[in-house]
Amino acid sequence: MFDQSTQRVCIVGTGLLGASLGLALRQAGFGGTVVGVARRAATRDETLGIGAVDEATDDTAAAVSDADLVVLATPVGTVIRLLSDLAGRFKPTAVITDVGSTKKTTVDAAAALANPGRFVGAHPMAGGERSGPSAAEADLYHGKPVILTPTDATDADALAVVETMWRALGMRVLVMGPAEHDAAVARISHLPHVVSSMLMRMATDSGGLDAASTGLRSMTRLASGDTHMWADILQDNAPAVLAALADWRAECDRLQELIETNDRDRIVLWLDEASSMRREWLNRGDQA
Amino acid sequence: MFDQSTQRVCIVGTGLLGASLGLALRQAGFGGTVVGVARRAATRDETLGIGAVDEATDDTAAAVSDADLVVLATPVGTVIRLLSDLAGRFKPTAVITDVGSTKKTTVDAAAALANPGRFVGAHPMAGGERSGPSAAEADLYHGKPVILTPTDATDADALAVVETMWRALGMRVLVMGPAEHDAAVARISHLPHVVSSMLMRMATDSGGLDAASTGLRSMTRLASGDTHMWADILQDNAPAVLAALADWRAECDRLQELIETNDRDRIVLWLDEASSMRREWLNRGDQA
Repeated sequence: MFDQSTQRVCIVGTGLLGASLGLALRQAGFGGTVVGVARRAATRDETLGIGAVDEATDDTAAAVSDADLVVLATPVGTVIRLLSDLAGRFKPTAVITDVGSTKKTTVDAAAALANPGRFVGAHPMAGGERSGPSAAEADLYHGKPVILTPTDATDADALAVVETMWRALGMRVLVMGPAEHDAAVARISHLPHVVSSMLMRMATDSGGLDAASTGLRSMTRLASGDTHMWADILQDNAPAVLAALADWRAECDRLQELIETNDRDRIVLWLDEASSMRREWLNRGDQA
Repeated sequence: MFDQSTQRVCIVGTGLLGASLGLALRQAGFGGTVVGVARRAATRDETLGIGAVDEATDDTAAAVSDADLVVLATPVGTVIRLLSDLAGRFKPTAVITDVGSTKKTTVDAAAALANPGRFVGAHPMAGGERSGPSAAEADLYHGKPVILTPTDATDADALAVVETMWRALGMRVLVMGPAEHDAAVARISHLPHVVSSMLMRMATDSGGLDAASTGLRSMTRLASGDTHMWADILQDNAPAVLAALADWRAECDRLQELIETNDRDRIVLWLDEASSMRREWLNRGDQA
């Protein structure tokens, strides 16, 4: 997978994303050592038990000090804190990346590293409503997109290492700027998530939940996600999420106007357009 | 399943819901005759071919004239027209029901029948994004809720026949008033549907669709539904859908305020509440 310079990979945070990465590296034939960092002993035992890591520790500074590739797989808030706390602890040649759902604040925080060019922001679009190493799967990432957000300061060889890893795990690699990433995911990921929670709240308040069926169940699946991780995301990406909410209200306005004017042709067209957009998206064959 | 008085069932409209009903009746051991009405010869051939009906015709008036139970399985607009067109064609003892997604306008239209007490409004909460008899499944209804909307004018024996049928097909029977039904489904079904279309439109407009993953795919599944049927529903249930949209804006306001004030505890609480509501709902074990 990697060349000889990447022998030791350290995954900081072995929840669903971190532990799945460990399993996926192994499955993809990575022959080096994977070290997992977790605070809780039970988490360390579990990641060792399922074979997601070769070694497990709670000493982050020690674990990253001799790693060739460090993957920060914690919630976004912790990634930013770790970049600051560990700034002088990484090997000078180490490549550092993350799996966080927002990128601008993380990439900005990485500018304070001793070698900022070694950091490559990454956001694999994988996860789900489960959390923890018990939900880990070697195939979690396979076939899904990963967004990399290098800047002008990013070393080309560091970008190549991170890109090589995700491609080896079967991901489709997309590259965009950190701010562009945050605006896009606010619309394709963060808004859908909060909409899922809003639908669940509203259906419950309606008193009609007994009559709800598979449609509502699938529309509220995301609402069962890790709430602390999502609070992190909403706080960290607040400006883009608020902008997406403003666009969302404009969509609500358009729909309301269609229903109020009772114009059948335009209502059908509105629904048809959405249906066609989805068909074209799925037909592209590159969706997860 | 039924007593001797129900020997001949006529299903008017053999799309996904009608054809699945035919298959389900057969699977549940119904020993009488099922007649399907469809305009298109190809649809009639297909429903006969898959064994969803014993007889198929395009002559609605003739088909309903000797049926003991008539199930109007067409879009809501057509149900209302059929109730008017066929008002004098039903057997006086026939039970008439429907599977439409809105109930008030249909129940009101049934008041013009020669024997309005024979009509029982019904809304099985089953379907999906597929349509047509080729998507029919004998198990489509199994384990899901069906809402019946009898009024003071409804004959008890007619209600019993309709209730018996859906129970025999494994559905959970709920009873509520037509207006109460329409307000509830606007929140648990119609709003989720239009939200799904809105998310698809917004994700496409964002230009970030290449990076979207399974979360968005499941959140937009409903947008692939039958657009003409859904236009019918939105038009027919416009007042309740507009009221649901007003509630929805209030939910957007609350979320916006939470994010703007950046109050982590309240953001986590808001997400936790939605997650708990969903867990309690699924744990009840009565959801589809």
